[in-house]
This record gives sequence, C-alpha cells and structure tokens, in this order.
Amino acid sequence: MIKQNATQALRQLLGDRFTTSESDREIHGRSESHFDLMSPAAVAYPTTTDEVQRIVEICARSDVPMVGWGTGTSLEAQTGADDSSLTIDFSQMNKIRHIDPENMLITVDPGITRKEVNEALRDTGLFFSVDPGANASIGGMAATRASGTTTVRYGTMRDAVKALEVVLADGRIIKTGTYAKKTSAGYDLTALMVGSEGTLGLITELTLKLHPIPEAISAGIVAFESFGGAVQSVIEMIQVALPMARMEFVDTATVQAFNAYADRNMPAMPHLLFELHGSEDSVKQDAETFGAICRENGGQDFEWSERTEDRTALWSLRHNGYYAILAARKGARAVVTDICVPISHLADAVEETRADIAASGLMGPILGHVGDGNFHSVLLLDPENKVEHETALALSDRMAQRALAYGGTCTGEHGVGIGKKKFMEAEHGPAWDVMGAIKQALDPHNLMNPGKLVRD
Amino acid sequence: MIKQNATQALRQLLGDRFTTSESDREIHGRSESHFDLMSPAAVAYPTTTDEVQRIVEICARSDVPMVGWGTGTSLEAQTGADDSSLTIDFSQMNKIRHIDPENMLITVDPGITRKEVNEALRDTGLFFSVDPGANASIGGMAATRASGTTTVRYGTMRDAVKALEVVLADGRIIKTGTYAKKTSAGYDLTALMVGSEGTLGLITELTLKLHPIPEAISAGIVAFESFGGAVQSVIEMIQVALPMARMEFVDTATVQAFNAYADRNMPAMPHLLFELHGSEDSVKQDAETFGAICRENGGQDFEWSERTEDRTALWSLRHNGYYAILAARKGARAVVTDICVPISHLADAVEETRADIAASGLMGPILGHVGDGNFHSVLLLDPENKVEHETALALSDRMAQRALAYGGTCTGEHGVGIGKKKFMEAEHGPAWDVMGAIKQALDPHNLMNPGKLVRD
Repeated sequence: MIKQNATQALRQLLGDRFTTSESDREIHGRSESHFDLMSPAAVAYPTTTDEVQRIVEICARSDVPMVGWGTGTSLEAQTGADDSSLTIDFSQMNKIRHIDPENMLITVDPGITRKEVNEALRDTGLFFSVDPGANASIGGMAATRASGTTTVRYGTMRDAVKALEVVLADGRIIKTGTYAKKTSAGYDLTALMVGSEGTLGLITELTLKLHPIPEAISAGIVAFESFGGAVQSVIEMIQVALPMARMEFVDTATVQAFNAYADRNMPAMPHLLFELHGSEDSVKQDAETFGAICRENGGQDFEWSERTEDRTALWSLRHNGYYAILAARKGARAVVTDICVPISHLADAVEETRADIAASGLMGPILGHVGDGNFHSVLLLDPENKVEHETALALSDRMAQRALAYGGTCTGEHGVGIGKKKFMEAEHGPAWDVMGAIKQALDPHNLMNPGKLVRD
Repeated sequence: MIKQNATQALRQLLGDRFTTSESDREIHGRSESHFDLMSPAAVAYPTTTDEVQRIVEICARSDVPMVGWGTGTSLEAQTGADDSSLTIDFSQMNKIRHIDPENMLITVDPGITRKEVNEALRDTGLFFSVDPGANASIGGMAATRASGTTTVRYGTMRDAVKALEVVLADGRIIKTGTYAKKTSAGYDLTALMVGSEGTLGLITELTLKLHPIPEAISAGIVAFESFGGAVQSVIEMIQVALPMARMEFVDTATVQAFNAYADRNMPAMPHLLFELHGSEDSVKQDAETFGAICRENGGQDFEWSERTEDRTALWSLRHNGYYAILAARKGARAVVTDICVPISHLADAVEETRADIAASGLMGPILGHVGDGNFHSVLLLDPENKVEHETALALSDRMAQRALAYGGTCTGEHGVGIGKKKFMEAEHGPAWDVMGAIKQALDPHNLMNPGKLVRD
C-alpha cells in the first residue's frame, strides 16, 4: 500500500496516467523469465523529465520505493516490485529529442525502443548498434548494460551511451557525460549509471553513439563438426583482427529447435552465424579469410548472402531463438542462463555445461555470442514441476560458479536483478560492499529499485 | 609534518624505501606544468600490493594524506602534495604480472611504463594501444584516464583497462572487473576508478586489453591550405568509417617549431599527421580514400611511408611537440591547455582560440588529436613575468569556457587535478556534487589525494 497522501499527489499530478488497476499492476509484476508475480501497488506513466522529478519527490516524501519499467523484457527480475512500490513505466516517454549526424549522436527519451531509434535514423546513413534480440527500451538497455549480437564489433551499452540525464533519489536532476568524443573531467558517472539497474536513479534521457551503415554487409551460416572447432575459428579470427560484426554460436539442439520452429532444414550440427561489415572489397577479402579459418577447423559448406532479406531472415531466426527453444517443449517455461568467460576457456565452459545439462535430464539448448565468450542455455521446465525448477536453478548456479572459476562473470548481459545477487559476493568480494556504499551515498533511504543488485 | 608514530611505522615497514630527504621531496613536488612546487613531507617506495595496503593502514591511523606518483608527467598538479602528506611512488612496482595472449590481456604493476609494456609484448604479435606521448606509468595513465594519438581508433584508458586491483582509503583491497570480454554484474567500478586521480584509492594492479599488431601500417603527413579543410577531411573520413589509427593536427606555428627543433623542412602550413592500420590490401584502399578526401578539401602533396624508421621519426616528432614548442622561446615555461569539443565545432573552436591567442601577444602553437575533437595550445611564458602567466591562465580559462559552450569538456585527456577544478561546477552542475558524495562514501576522512578533482 502506498500512503494516501502520496496516492493523492500522484493522481493529481498524472490524472489517468496514475493507476492502481489490477490488470496494470499484474502486467507490471510479470517478467519474461521464471520469477513469480511481483506486482507494484500502482503504476505511473510520466511523459516528461519534469514529471519524473515530481514523482520522485512525492515518493521520497512518503518513502515509496520506485521501480523503473521499459518493456518488461529483463530476465533477472530487475522490474520486480511489491505492494508498497510504485512502478514508473516509461513507455509514454518515447520521443527522439535530437539527431546530430555530424557528431554521430542521437538523444532520446528512455522509453523509446531500439527498433524505433533505428527507424528514426533511416535517412541518415547511421545506425544504433546494440542489439539484444528483444525490442527493448533504450533506458532499460542502459540500466542493465545490455549487449547482444553486434557487441563483438561495436561494444555494449557501456560503449554506446555517451551522456545521460538521471533523476536521483532526492529528485535532483543530473546530466552526466559530454558530447565530445572523450573527457577526463572527473568520475565517469555515465559508466556508473549504465548497469545500475535503476538502483541509483531513473534515467530520463540518453545520448547514444551511432555508427555509419557499412557500404557492404555480408551474412552467412556455417556448420561445424564440433563446437571446439567453431570456437577455435573465432579465436583465430580475433587474433588476426578480422572485423566480425556478428559472430553467434548455436548448438545442435538449438538447430533442431530452429528447424521445427521456422521450417528450416539446417544439418543437425553446431553452427556459427556471422556477419561482416566493411567496404565491398574488404568484406570480400574478410570473407575469404573467414572461410579459410573455418575450413581449417572443421567448418563445412557455407551459406552466404549479401541480400537484405536473407540477412533479415537469418537474424530473425537467431532473435527468435528463445521462442523457438521454448516451443520445443509444450507448455514449458524457461530458466535462461547467461555467463561470460575469457574466450580461451569458452570451449571447456560450454562442454562442461552441456555434460551437466545432459546429466540433469532437462532439455537445455545452448546458444551465444561466441565472439564475446558469452553464452546462454535455455533450460526448459514444466512450471508445475518443482523438482524440475530446482534442477534448472541448480544447473544455472553451477554455470555461474564455472564462469567465476574461469575468471569470467555470472552475467554477461542480463544483469543482476534478484536472480544473480547470490553470486555477487563470490564474483566481487569486498568490491560488492563498495557498490553498497555508493548505493547508500546516492540513495540513503533505499527507495530506488530496492532489493536488486546490492546487498540487502 | 607526519606524526612521529606514523613516520616510525613507515620506516620500520620500508627501511630505505621511506625517505624524508630534501631532494626526494623536491622531485615529488615538481610537475611538468606551470604549478609551483608542492612537496610532500616524505616519500614511500612500495614494491608490493601488501606493502601499499600496510602504508595505507598506517596513514589512515594517523590521518596522513596520501598522494600516488607514477612518473610525474601529469599536467594539472594531480601529484601536488603538502608538508602533511606522504607521496607513494610506484616506480619500484614495475613488473609484468601475467601475459595472456589468447585473451589479449596483460596484467601489470602500476609503476610500469607504457613503453615497457610494449617491450614485454614484443614477441606476442600484440600491442598496448594508449599513447599519450610521455612515457607515463600505466597506473598514472589509468588514474587520469589518459589517451592520445591512437585514441581515434583504439580508445582511451576507459576502453583499455579491463580490471583493477585497488587499495581503498581504509586499507581494503578490492578487485574490479572481470577477464571476460563483457559483464553486467553490477556497478562498473573499473570505470569509476579510471579517471579518479587517486582520490578514491590507489591502483596496485591493472589488467589491460591488447590489440593485434596490424599486418600493414602506413603513416604520413599532408599539408593543408587551411585548418578548416583539414577538419572537414577528418569529419568526412569518420563518416565513411575510414579506420584511421592516428589522426593528428599541427598548426603553422607548431610546424615552424618542429622545423627548428628537429631540423625538418616542412612547409609553413597546417598539417595532418596520420597512420592507417590494416591488411596490406585494406591499407592501400584506405590510403586512396584518404588521399581523395584530403585533395577535395585543399590537401597538398603527401609524404607517405610504410618503413618503420620513417614512422618512428614522424611520431617522435609529434611526441616531442611539447619540447619543440618550449624550445621556441628561450627559458620559457608553458601553460598547456586541453579541451575537447564535438567534432562539428572543432574548426570554430580552434579558429576562435587562435584569434584569442593572437590578440594576447603570447606565443601559443596549437596541436591536437583532431579525430577526437581534442586540441592543445602550448602557451609560452616568461616564468618571471606575472602578467604573462596571468594572461596565459586567462586564455586557458576562456578555452575551457568555449569548450563547454560547444557541448564539450574542459579536459579531453589531462584530467582535473587542481588546475581544472574551477570548471567542474560549470561542466557538471549537480553531478559534481554526486562525485563528491561518492568520494565521501569511499574516503570519509579525505585522505586520498585531497584537494583534487572534487569540491573542497
């Protein structure tokens, strides 16, 4: 329950854009992952930074916890709330604020989605590179430090966010960063806010770095005799600085799910899905190098294309991987794991994970951003079956421990939320307490997305 | 004065590696820039992380301010101390800890210099990219978020540092970051520490990202009719995603200083100095594109070379720019300015700066990292002449204000220290207070490099 005076003030400020309706609360209590319903007491739909500031001031006065919401596609319960909390849904703050083609920057509202950003850029020759699969909101992507298929070339949200506007827990509005390409002017608050999952403040504006659309794009797919050969190929490509723009791995079980879901006819073997960006000449040359390296490591026939529609089909296949795998077991829910290891340990980490899943009896296809050392298994379980749920969570825990043993991280791109908090101590040691001290300094009353990321 | 019991404890811990000698104190009170002598009470030379931790514990118990020291090449008095402080000189912590060629990482002590790192990598086919000119220590480069000639392609220390070990103000040792290529596991403490100038802790170990040495490197120099043409060329190169590895600008006055200092015979015109990295074929193709763009914008004859010795000569010319300019006026000292603006405003910012310098009567050649929008003027002054000193500082202040008006930053790569503190409020507004709150949270007794970067 939110205190009466706060409810009144919010209703007065927002009118219909403040709601305690059952359906709204339920929608904002759900996530795409395996967590139970965690509904807020109410939902607010601000349209301006000024409104966000006033909402925060009202909540701060009445000790109302605040949870930011983009599109609800986070996977570690980052948007989980409770009946004392207000969820602040940014879907009505979804405008382009400014496009600056000369400096290759765009300034946007937090609720705009990555696809909407790229649509707005259509006539500029530029694009926004970060692609987590889901058509997530830009604010949410920044908050979880999202990445995805193009990260091997263009980086994560850490690299893509140039400047931010943030409303802090006490209602102050700050601007972080600069529009210049680099700065040494003090602590990097932009990097601190990216990945802070709404625990330090609410992002109300983002300036993003853009890239020129390359002259030539070529995409394709190649089957491998073994996963080890695929990883070795990628390691060699990195060592010769081959500028891969995308480099994705799918295992045999994922390929089978693709075949069933999208009516494809891929051989039941591990595959690499890839994309090269550059000039006409450089893409041709890179493709030759790419082919030679793959063949040396057991790569089979290539399927190649420079046609946009073929590329779109290929990446929509990859982006629907989660749904294709879910469809492989009727009525299943999924625990989606997300670890990232140094690439030299990737083949071992995947093989050990595969063996562990096989021994568990669960279905768990593996796919991932192999150029980054980041992979996921989608562990399918019957939602009614408690044993399966526990088995899946135990598998996920062992994956995280494996990642840490290899010098990696318990989450490559999904973030901490509630789901990965139990590994923060093991991954960070006393540095986790430093995160807690920073949280305490900026949000002393623990009102910004409480219960997530830092120690309780 | 440091309290007697702290002095005794430090002497017992370090023996000869703790000193209060006049010469040692004076050396550590000087900087390469225009600031007055700011000597510490004593200097410590630790050799291990464990010793740094014990030093910090001793200082914390006796309220002794601690100032980190790498090579003393910072330019904004980042290493300035006073007679209550201990300077911690990392020159004896200068070892390679681990080279990991498969993951393209190297782990080093903070006192090692960037040239020593690259020497250690000689047989690996890899290199460390950040090049600020001076052969600075890696720890110091991280602390000031250094960058330089190769940043246009490979990034700043923000991009180059993968993981850190840091001794905090209370003696706790933390590890930040991961050896995996990316992570979403909580606040980005690595990015927070990079650029914190020793105000949040002392860096005792760094893991750095490396890059493959390109198959082909080609460097050269081209004169332009006007600076505007040179900048326009660079903007166009960025827009076609030409992968320039270095892209430096020098104005006519700098060229004249080069000619005198290094016995060159360059035409008295603005020049671009550049380098291209890639495969044999791609460098050839990029060079053609480069040439075409320059010619369209008033570029004159090229001097080109793929020979290592020519490249070394070219970049040593650039790296000695500061000394070449200093030599242009006998007995002069310099105020070195350092602003960075969005590249669309670079031509205007440089022209306005040039006019401002001309009106002042001082000599102030301009040179910079044009691909980043970052440039410096080296304002020469007679150290005995107070009016000149004030004129130079006033010019520098107006440059910083100009940068902010253009959406840029008061420091592109030299950092804040003492010299740029006066612009932090204007650049960051309430975000500067957030920096102060973080400082307060991690260093409540204000012992880590006090008086720098944050508000007093």
